[in-house]
Amino acid sequence: DYNELLQYFRANPQLQHWIDIRGYRDITLLEKILADFQIHPLQMEDVISDYQRPKMDTEGKNLFFISRMITFLPDHCLDDDQISIFVGANYIITFQSDYEDCLDVLRTRIKAGRGVVRKSPVHYIAYAIMDVTIDNYFPVLAQVGDYLEELEDTLFGQPNKKLLNEILNMKREMLKVRRIAWSERDKLNEILRSDNNTIPDDIKIYFKDVYDHIVQVLDIVDNYRELMGNLTELYLSNVSNRMNEIMKVLTIISSIFIPLSFVAGVYGMNFSRENPDGTINYLNMPELYHPYGYIILLAIMLLILLGQLYFFYRKGWLRSF
Amino acid sequence: DYNELLQYFRANPQLQHWIDIRGYRDITLLEKILADFQIHPLQMEDVISDYQRPKMDTEGKNLFFISRMITFLPDHCLDDDQISIFVGANYIITFQSDYEDCLDVLRTRIKAGRGVVRKSPVHYIAYAIMDVTIDNYFPVLAQVGDYLEELEDTLFGQPNKKLLNEILNMKREMLKVRRIAWSERDKLNEILRSDNNTIPDDIKIYFKDVYDHIVQVLDIVDNYRELMGNLTELYLSNVSNRMNEIMKVLTIISSIFIPLSFVAGVYGMNFSRENPDGTINYLNMPELYHPYGYIILLAIMLLILLGQLYFFYRKGWLRSF
Amino acid sequence: DYNELLQYFRANPQLQHWIDIRGYRDITLLEKILADFQIHPLQMEDVISDYQRPKMDTEGKNLFFISRMITFLPDHCLDDDQISIFVGANYIITFQSDYEDCLDVLRTRIKAGRGVVRKSPVHYIAYAIMDVTIDNYFPVLAQVGDYLEELEDTLFGQPNKKLLNEILNMKREMLKVRRIAWSERDKLNEILRSDNNTIPDDIKIYFKDVYDHIVQVLDIVDNYRELMGNLTELYLSNVSNRMNEIMKVLTIISSIFIPLSFVAGVYGMNFSRENPDGTINYLNMPELYHPYGYIILLAIMLLILLGQLYFFYRKGWLRSF
Amino acid sequence: DYNELLQYFRANPQLQHWIDIRGYRDITLLEKILADFQIHPLQMEDVISDYQRPKMDTEGKNLFFISRMITFLPDHCLDDDQISIFVGANYIITFQSDYEDCLDVLRTRIKAGRGVVRKSPVHYIAYAIMDVTIDNYFPVLAQVGDYLEELEDTLFGQPNKKLLNEILNMKREMLKVRRIAWSERDKLNEILRSDNNTIPDDIKIYFKDVYDHIVQVLDIVDNYRELMGNLTELYLSNVSNRMNEIMKVLTIISSIFIPLSFVAGVYGMNFSRENPDGTINYLNMPELYHPYGYIILLAIMLLILLGQLYFFYRKGWLRSF
Amino acid sequence: DYNELLQYFRANPQLQHWIDIRGYRDITLLEKILADFQIHPLQMEDVISDYQRPKMDTEGKNLFFISRMITFLPDHCLDDDQISIFVGANYIITFQSDYEDCLDVLRTRIKAGRGVVRKSPVHYIAYAIMDVTIDNYFPVLAQVGDYLEELEDTLFGQPNKKLLNEILNMKREMLKVRRIAWSERDKLNEILRSDNNTIPDDIKIYFKDVYDHIVQVLDIVDNYRELMGNLTELYLSNVSNRMNEIMKVLTIISSIFIPLSFVAGVYGMNFSRENPDGTINYLNMPELYHPYGYIILLAIMLLILLGQLYFFYRKGWLRSF
Repeated sequence: DYNELLQYFRANPQLQHWIDIRGYRDITLLEKILADFQIHPLQMEDVISDYQRPKMDTEGKNLFFISRMITFLPDHCLDDDQISIFVGANYIITFQSDYEDCLDVLRTRIKAGRGVVRKSPVHYIAYAIMDVTIDNYFPVLAQVGDYLEELEDTLFGQPNKKLLNEILNMKREMLKVRRIAWSERDKLNEILRSDNNTIPDDIKIYFKDVYDHIVQVLDIVDNYRELMGNLTELYLSNVSNRMNEIMKVLTIISSIFIPLSFVAGVYGMNFSRENPDGTINYLNMPELYHPYGYIILLAIMLLILLGQLYFFYRKGWLRSF
Repeated sequence: DYNELLQYFRANPQLQHWIDIRGYRDITLLEKILADFQIHPLQMEDVISDYQRPKMDTEGKNLFFISRMITFLPDHCLDDDQISIFVGANYIITFQSDYEDCLDVLRTRIKAGRGVVRKSPVHYIAYAIMDVTIDNYFPVLAQVGDYLEELEDTLFGQPNKKLLNEILNMKREMLKVRRIAWSERDKLNEILRSDNNTIPDDIKIYFKDVYDHIVQVLDIVDNYRELMGNLTELYLSNVSNRMNEIMKVLTIISSIFIPLSFVAGVYGMNFSRENPDGTINYLNMPELYHPYGYIILLAIMLLILLGQLYFFYRKGWLRSF
Repeated sequence: DYNELLQYFRANPQLQHWIDIRGYRDITLLEKILADFQIHPLQMEDVISDYQRPKMDTEGKNLFFISRMITFLPDHCLDDDQISIFVGANYIITFQSDYEDCLDVLRTRIKAGRGVVRKSPVHYIAYAIMDVTIDNYFPVLAQVGDYLEELEDTLFGQPNKKLLNEILNMKREMLKVRRIAWSERDKLNEILRSDNNTIPDDIKIYFKDVYDHIVQVLDIVDNYRELMGNLTELYLSNVSNRMNEIMKVLTIISSIFIPLSFVAGVYGMNFSRENPDGTINYLNMPELYHPYGYIILLAIMLLILLGQLYFFYRKGWLRSF
Repeated sequence: DYNELLQYFRANPQLQHWIDIRGYRDITLLEKILADFQIHPLQMEDVISDYQRPKMDTEGKNLFFISRMITFLPDHCLDDDQISIFVGANYIITFQSDYEDCLDVLRTRIKAGRGVVRKSPVHYIAYAIMDVTIDNYFPVLAQVGDYLEELEDTLFGQPNKKLLNEILNMKREMLKVRRIAWSERDKLNEILRSDNNTIPDDIKIYFKDVYDHIVQVLDIVDNYRELMGNLTELYLSNVSNRMNEIMKVLTIISSIFIPLSFVAGVYGMNFSRENPDGTINYLNMPELYHPYGYIILLAIMLLILLGQLYFFYRKGWLRSF
Repeated sequence: DYNELLQYFRANPQLQHWIDIRGYRDITLLEKILADFQIHPLQMEDVISDYQRPKMDTEGKNLFFISRMITFLPDHCLDDDQISIFVGANYIITFQSDYEDCLDVLRTRIKAGRGVVRKSPVHYIAYAIMDVTIDNYFPVLAQVGDYLEELEDTLFGQPNKKLLNEILNMKREMLKVRRIAWSERDKLNEILRSDNNTIPDDIKIYFKDVYDHIVQVLDIVDNYRELMGNLTELYLSNVSNRMNEIMKVLTIISSIFIPLSFVAGVYGMNFSRENPDGTINYLNMPELYHPYGYIILLAIMLLILLGQLYFFYRKGWLRSF
């Protein structure tokens, strides 16, 4: 059926064609396309390698663009897929490794026959594809934002040891998005600075709009990165604060009871009051034989306790319980 | 009444007009303006999206500027609102989403008929709007400065756990202001470098003044960011210092009373002095039977206590209480 | 045999020659080559010094390139070896200090007579050598990636003191790779910007491909550096967390048993119930003489214990054991 | 007397004049000067605002320079005052808000009639003023250096909680100086790159000298900033080290006496040797009835003590006392 | 003798002269040289000030270069001395404040009459001086490397409090070297970009070589800085790890003996078994009267001890002793 399509394409040079390839399994098909549309082999390598920063390439017979689409996976990672776009005189060919993407909106719009039509619709479709791709960053970033808020709530609620790891992982994912968005920005800059023959000037104003969007993406990403930096610092300060609290409990309880235990220990000593000869050592622990000894000692212990509590209260250590 | 206004505008081409739109609810009105004043649809999108960095756009029939106004909200956040300015031959149109802004000074001045009038007053009004917008940064930053001093006082007074969060949040807000101010600076740079037809040279010297102001804003923002960095570091060192103090209390009290308790414990042991056969084990705790045993032991304990206190005093641990 | 080779080379000017020198021991041979192929003495110094960043040098009669190959050693260090390439009219000379390298793929391909042949194959071979050199970075980086995963597993499993050192060492090695890759990138940039006489334009498109690869290398290296930064932070937070856990154990056990010990100590005091005259001090520790005294005290101790456990449970300190 | 001065100035066009204004109180005087010397109102605003980065302004009839002088205040802050310089055909006007400055050297030199005189002495005086201003940075920075040494001594001697705050404050002041010095450097760069009509070429070589001085200022400031970064890190590590020492004291004393107390506690237990029927429970604490029980126990306790001390000695914990 | 030298110099215009001045004491001599060789007074100021970044100055009649030599002092500081070079038509004058330097190799070589002689030997000697100066960085950096290894060994062996200070000081010294080397690099860049009249093109290839060397110096310095950053981080983590170990010892010993002491304390209580009326309170501590009470209790204590050791073993706290 590729041959049918090619025949139809050659029979209708006055029409605009969008050839939409998904999945790279069928190598022979790719080689046919390479030959029929005069795609440079190195460019086809770029398509298949599937790891290429967004770029624009004016070498060869076709204009060649690479964009990347991002998706927020359920395990809080970001997946980025490549979409390669070749723009020829009256056709546009796109390659993707995945079958699902964010371009269905556009396909529906084109099938419905709606949308703007202009002098050079092929470039306009290229614009539309990149526009949809970039616009799809915003809902993904919104999901990231929700996730970050979740992390923030966890941090102020019941932080666990995995939290820091999750924050740092997300920071790294954002760095990846930042790198992609910067290349995307460079690509759009190159498009805007290219001459009229490469991209018609009346199309460029649309690309200027995409450019503004990618700058907004970069703003949001930088904002998230700053936020995650803050979360990291809060997490670490949180650990220190919890340590402080643990130490306070230990210190308060030890400081109160260790001296009291000592006092009790003193009066548990067995100094002998009676000598073998029946005389009495009046200096050996006379307190023990005082009729109110026990009561007085308990009162002294209470005073020590209250004194210490007052000391800790004044230091502000009782407050945060 | 928009139609009346439009008629009046068309009837008086020799006059300068400022059309001041606030709120974006009335879509049909916006579309009429778009048509009547030949505003590019993408520019109108920028207006309505309400999230756009300050920029200058010379595409289309009108000169198009975006500025952002900042407000310090009572919850210590910074709000930034967009003001979009279209400058035509003899009119200026401004769009804002909010009804309140910082331009009332300017409106009053114009209504009163005061203010400078020159060859190209439309550009001069554009300058005046941007000048007032930027000058409004200074009182907002002064409020931020007051808030930072408050935070600093809290830090040296009764720091709590939320403090770090507040400092870091403010740092992030300042980063936002910095980003806006940088774009504003770029915009003004572009204005200053534009040719005479876009902005008359005799107006540019006024924009040079606005440029100097935005550079001052950036200086202040950077100074605040440095200050907040310092506050963060002080907060963290504060946590460590408090931990140190807690540990010192624990260590002093434990180190004094644990050995004393041991001594008391020793003399609480029940080694038997008398054998079943009535002979005496003179080596089993003879201290307990000494007439001054108790007194001597108390004296020894006092010496241990004083020795330890001297040790801690020399280490400087008693000082900071 | 060098003389034979030279004769053969001179007798066949129409052929392309690749002279492949490994090891720098034979100084006289190097001097002969220097004279016969008009290599600049300073360039030969660069070759022998064996420490030179990747660069391109158009001085002298030959085109002179330096590339560096990296190897991942078993002790988790990265070794980088220099390969120096001189490109003349119909010959290419390469110098290496080591006998083993990553170019055997290429040699096999050439010996088999396969591979593309074009108008200026000498430049193409130079491209092929650099391409293989750069492509060899990917398996090395994959090994580094495996090692980093190993480190990450150790971190979450049984972290030891050496771990941080290993992470930081690897970070430093990656910095070295980064520095080399940046110079490589600059060199390729210079190649791409050079005029048609230096490097034919139809070869440049291949160098463009190498350029894209080195940019990918830089992406991976930056990603690893970010990952190692995260590992460092996790390691340090791990140390703090373990400290927290240690402190929690200490605090829970001390807080429970120190007060209980105090209570036991109180009832180990020897306050005398009987006076010498046989009367009884009813106020001296009457609890000891209560028939259920012991049972009641044990019950009270149990209540204290449960109360404290509840307190620690509510603080969440019992959870992470 | 301003009028007299003006008359004298107008009567002697062949002379060079330096009009030296200090304090901005007399608004009417400033307005007269503005009118008489054709100073641009926005430039006069810059003068009065008193907060302006060093800059050069070639707009208007006069050359306009702003420099900033720094002073080290007794409270360890840096004060920076603005000096505004207008250079006309045969006059130079300087404005300052303060009455005291660092220019007295220059005034004395001029009054004494010494100093170099050249073709365009007015530019030379402008150079001399800026030169003296910049040269005054060195003694101020020397004072800062002394203060930093003082802070360093405190850090290694008796560090207190305020120390970190003082270091961080000074760091911020240095950032301010750095910002000023950078603007000063940019200004001097602009002077050096300006054409011959603005600044005569034979004067520029003097400005080159000032330029070298401001670069030295930047070197010193960067060196101080690095030093303060080190002090901060040392302070924080100091806090940790003190904590370590506190913990060591606590651990050594607790580890020695808690087990010993336990042993003493064991022999303080009241297990009954005699049954009600007069038989003896030989298994209930027979140690207590051994004639050398006490001595043997004391020996065992001494062994435990020595064992622990040896353990702590081997761990190196006894060293740093 | 300066006059003799001058006469000899003037009598032999066809010869190349190197006038080598060390020490700046003899001001009159310096002034004579200034006059005889038409040195600009500001350049002579640069010479005497002795603090000037490496630079090239083409103003005036002579070419003027400043280089800096570094020395590693025994107290682990780096000293940097200035060497000022004036290059005229057939003479070269060098100034240094110190009498000792690294140029003796060169002097010996020249006296021996060896070394390359070319069309413009004066520039070649200038190159040779700078080359020797830069080449001298390598042994100095090797000394620094040895010192860093020493510090690293100390860190993993017996770290003390001064270590961090030493690391940070060295880092600061390296920053100084980095600053000098950057200026040196800029100077060499300027030399390479200068026109043929300033520096002959056939000499430039030698300067290219010096340029490559200074880039290597920068690589080494950056590598050292990274290493010192790592050492700092390891030192700080070391402090935390030691704290962890101290806390572990404390926790293990306290956790084991505090509960055991409590148990012993319980059986040290004096609850009375006999009532005054001779009846027995069977509920008051019956354990004490059991024939195997003591043995059973010791067994229970042993079980508690083993249980705790098992708990600590499973937590991995016993491993690192």
